[in-house]
Amino acid sequence: MKNIFTSLVLIASMVLPAFGSAASAETADLIISGGKVVTMDAGRRVIEDGAVAVREGTIVAVGTRAEVVRGFRARRTINAAGKVVVPGLINTHTHVPMTLFRGIADDMDLQEWLTKFIFPAEAKNVDEPFVRAGTRLGLAEMIRGGTTTYCDMYYFEDAIADETSKAGVRGVLGQTIIDFPVPDAKTFADGLELTERFIKKWQGHPLIVPAVAPHAPYTVSENNLTDARALSDRLGAPLVIHLAEANTETEFIQQKHEGMRPIVFMEKINFFNGRTIAAHVIQANAEELDILKRHNVGTAHNPQSNMKLAAGVAPVPMMLAKEMNVGLGTDGPASNNDLSLWEEMDTAAKLHKVFSGDPKVVSAEQVFAMATIGGARALHMGEKIGSLEVGKLADIVIVDIDGLHQTPMFNIYSHLVYATKSSDVRTVVINGRIVMQDRRLLTLNENAIKTEAIAYRKKIVESLKN
Amino acid sequence: MKNIFTSLVLIASMVLPAFGSAASAETADLIISGGKVVTMDAGRRVIEDGAVAVREGTIVAVGTRAEVVRGFRARRTINAAGKVVVPGLINTHTHVPMTLFRGIADDMDLQEWLTKFIFPAEAKNVDEPFVRAGTRLGLAEMIRGGTTTYCDMYYFEDAIADETSKAGVRGVLGQTIIDFPVPDAKTFADGLELTERFIKKWQGHPLIVPAVAPHAPYTVSENNLTDARALSDRLGAPLVIHLAEANTETEFIQQKHEGMRPIVFMEKINFFNGRTIAAHVIQANAEELDILKRHNVGTAHNPQSNMKLAAGVAPVPMMLAKEMNVGLGTDGPASNNDLSLWEEMDTAAKLHKVFSGDPKVVSAEQVFAMATIGGARALHMGEKIGSLEVGKLADIVIVDIDGLHQTPMFNIYSHLVYATKSSDVRTVVINGRIVMQDRRLLTLNENAIKTEAIAYRKKIVESLKN
Repeated sequence: MKNIFTSLVLIASMVLPAFGSAASAETADLIISGGKVVTMDAGRRVIEDGAVAVREGTIVAVGTRAEVVRGFRARRTINAAGKVVVPGLINTHTHVPMTLFRGIADDMDLQEWLTKFIFPAEAKNVDEPFVRAGTRLGLAEMIRGGTTTYCDMYYFEDAIADETSKAGVRGVLGQTIIDFPVPDAKTFADGLELTERFIKKWQGHPLIVPAVAPHAPYTVSENNLTDARALSDRLGAPLVIHLAEANTETEFIQQKHEGMRPIVFMEKINFFNGRTIAAHVIQANAEELDILKRHNVGTAHNPQSNMKLAAGVAPVPMMLAKEMNVGLGTDGPASNNDLSLWEEMDTAAKLHKVFSGDPKVVSAEQVFAMATIGGARALHMGEKIGSLEVGKLADIVIVDIDGLHQTPMFNIYSHLVYATKSSDVRTVVINGRIVMQDRRLLTLNENAIKTEAIAYRKKIVESLKN
Repeated sequence: MKNIFTSLVLIASMVLPAFGSAASAETADLIISGGKVVTMDAGRRVIEDGAVAVREGTIVAVGTRAEVVRGFRARRTINAAGKVVVPGLINTHTHVPMTLFRGIADDMDLQEWLTKFIFPAEAKNVDEPFVRAGTRLGLAEMIRGGTTTYCDMYYFEDAIADETSKAGVRGVLGQTIIDFPVPDAKTFADGLELTERFIKKWQGHPLIVPAVAPHAPYTVSENNLTDARALSDRLGAPLVIHLAEANTETEFIQQKHEGMRPIVFMEKINFFNGRTIAAHVIQANAEELDILKRHNVGTAHNPQSNMKLAAGVAPVPMMLAKEMNVGLGTDGPASNNDLSLWEEMDTAAKLHKVFSGDPKVVSAEQVFAMATIGGARALHMGEKIGSLEVGKLADIVIVDIDGLHQTPMFNIYSHLVYATKSSDVRTVVINGRIVMQDRRLLTLNENAIKTEAIAYRKKIVESLKN
């Protein structure tokens, strides 16, 4: 009701300037004023000398500075003149506590990497304090890079939710469950119970969307996959999974399930519900993409991780042609080795060109959409985030556009994708709250986080010696 | 003679500590003291709490801080404690004035890009003042990213040399000559004459290595290629060329020259001399790489540009297996769209993994070598630059290693390649001169450069309207 009223006032203030005069202006908590506003709305409106007004965590006006200032009196104003104002970036796939494993082992086979380094390191180090420290480290890096929402898969996801909410970041947080014993559950059934408690605890939180995350078709049995989906259905929670990542997965599923490839198998067992989010989706042909599209499965494309682990190249041009909901992800920093969506954008735009042999596929604008509104839709949150529009949640990023490496500027999408870096992000607003201003983190203590991470590094190195 | 003496003193000071006591210590102009010194010498020595001493533009000591301080008294010291000290990065292929065309046109076919945007924009805008402004812009960006040497191909290369030397940057600068009229020459013969004057003017300069740069086998006739090589031979100057970049080039040369592929054709006409530097080298099989190896051709690998223009993937794993001299390049910012060698390293390491399907190819250490000593060798300067060793020219970069996105740190090469960014470069020394200190440019006026670039942007946009 309030939103409808707000919209009416805004429309009136634009149509009838007198109506929106300072005397009758509404109050906003925050106005970001000036700068080029890249809305990523359906019309891809880019507003020169624009402004965005925010009240109670929601965007109440987007327009030219003159329009917005006419309609709203701000308690607080951020001057964005000479900068670019964009929707907060959305990282659709990561394992945030693994930021503590950044660079622990590189340039090796997936199996060697997993069995000699990642699994032993996890078994020996991952407990709740580790997860909290790693989450804070990753959150700080993500905020500094303009990421306002992320989708996670890990253990102790309740602790991750707690840290994420404290830092003021938005998360679709998937408690990971798997058939073998993991740091927070001895059996899949234990994990499922834990997940149910986790989801019930966090559902309805303004920032956190708790989710169930069965690890992958090759690590979770058919029965357990079905149980995970049932929990997702029962609680109305997202269902997050790794899917069709590697050739080895395809071969394993084919051997086990009468020659069916992973996506076909997953449809057959009725895994996909309208809330599924699938990471990777590399081993997928046109028919399999149609299956995902039919079930409205959101896809997380992780180009840098897929390259580094030599997993392959996801059929993103085909996904976009089919108008599927595809977002970008960094994957965990152990296989990237950072959480920068700017580099992920740059890589995505270039990778599909060389892989297809066509320099016209996956344009800069399409890639920027993947990192914003496309990612929002992939997380089934397209109505709430991903663009700067009245009624959407106020996840807003202000970006410097005058660095040497960004000069001169001819095309805004091209510049955002090919020239802008994480270090150009200046101010970050999530749910209407300023979490970084002028590159200073307001919700996290950067030095304490680094000190803690360095202490964990020692422990991790020691743990791998034994 | 002096270097031999210096080395003797240094050796003596290490073997006989008493000899190197403060009383008898030599004088250095600069000591970079503390920090992790990544030498990139043959033994790949990494020195904890190390130091580098510089005198008259040359490295006179590399060792632990204790060793170096014992042997040398410094006029000036830079404290690099907690940081990483690396050889200056080497960009083996760019067109620096094209920094003014950054993002002028993206996501299109090479032919459309060239004929509708790049060639018209060049014809209407490129004169000596344009080249100077673009060079300053590119130099500033390169210094900020830790690049200390670059190899260029463009027009008005004399002006580029002048700007480069004033900025204190090292360059192998190739005056580009081509069969059709260009901004600084109406004919190839004019261009060759201009090139001869240019080379004679700059040979012997402490920073500038002037070169002859016939554009490519498909834009320069057989006779003209031979003339260019003859000039390179007569003056002892490097011979820089684009080679084996695109399928269209291969087809063109095959049609014109009895089915010969570009590298085979170039060998047949005796183009390759011991000073050749070839950019791209994508369309090359094992036999063709053997040809390049036999003639000691240096190769510039430009992964991001090759991806963006969908040119293909150079056979870098094979080049490395054959122990060829291969460096990294950004290509011009119109096809990248930046001059960051850090992103080029990250991309190179990942691209070859996914393209070969093998996550073990092209390791982080190999990639960091390509950006330093490999690049030096590709430019035929391996004896002078590319590593931190006594007797080499003092091109040294100090890099922050404590950013959030770099924490924690397990492996130095992995961190430099996969996690470090241009914005982490703190201080840059070229030929013993500090050109950036604590991110402040000392030889270039950043604001003036940006103002000028923005003015040129307007002119360029107007010129493309007509």
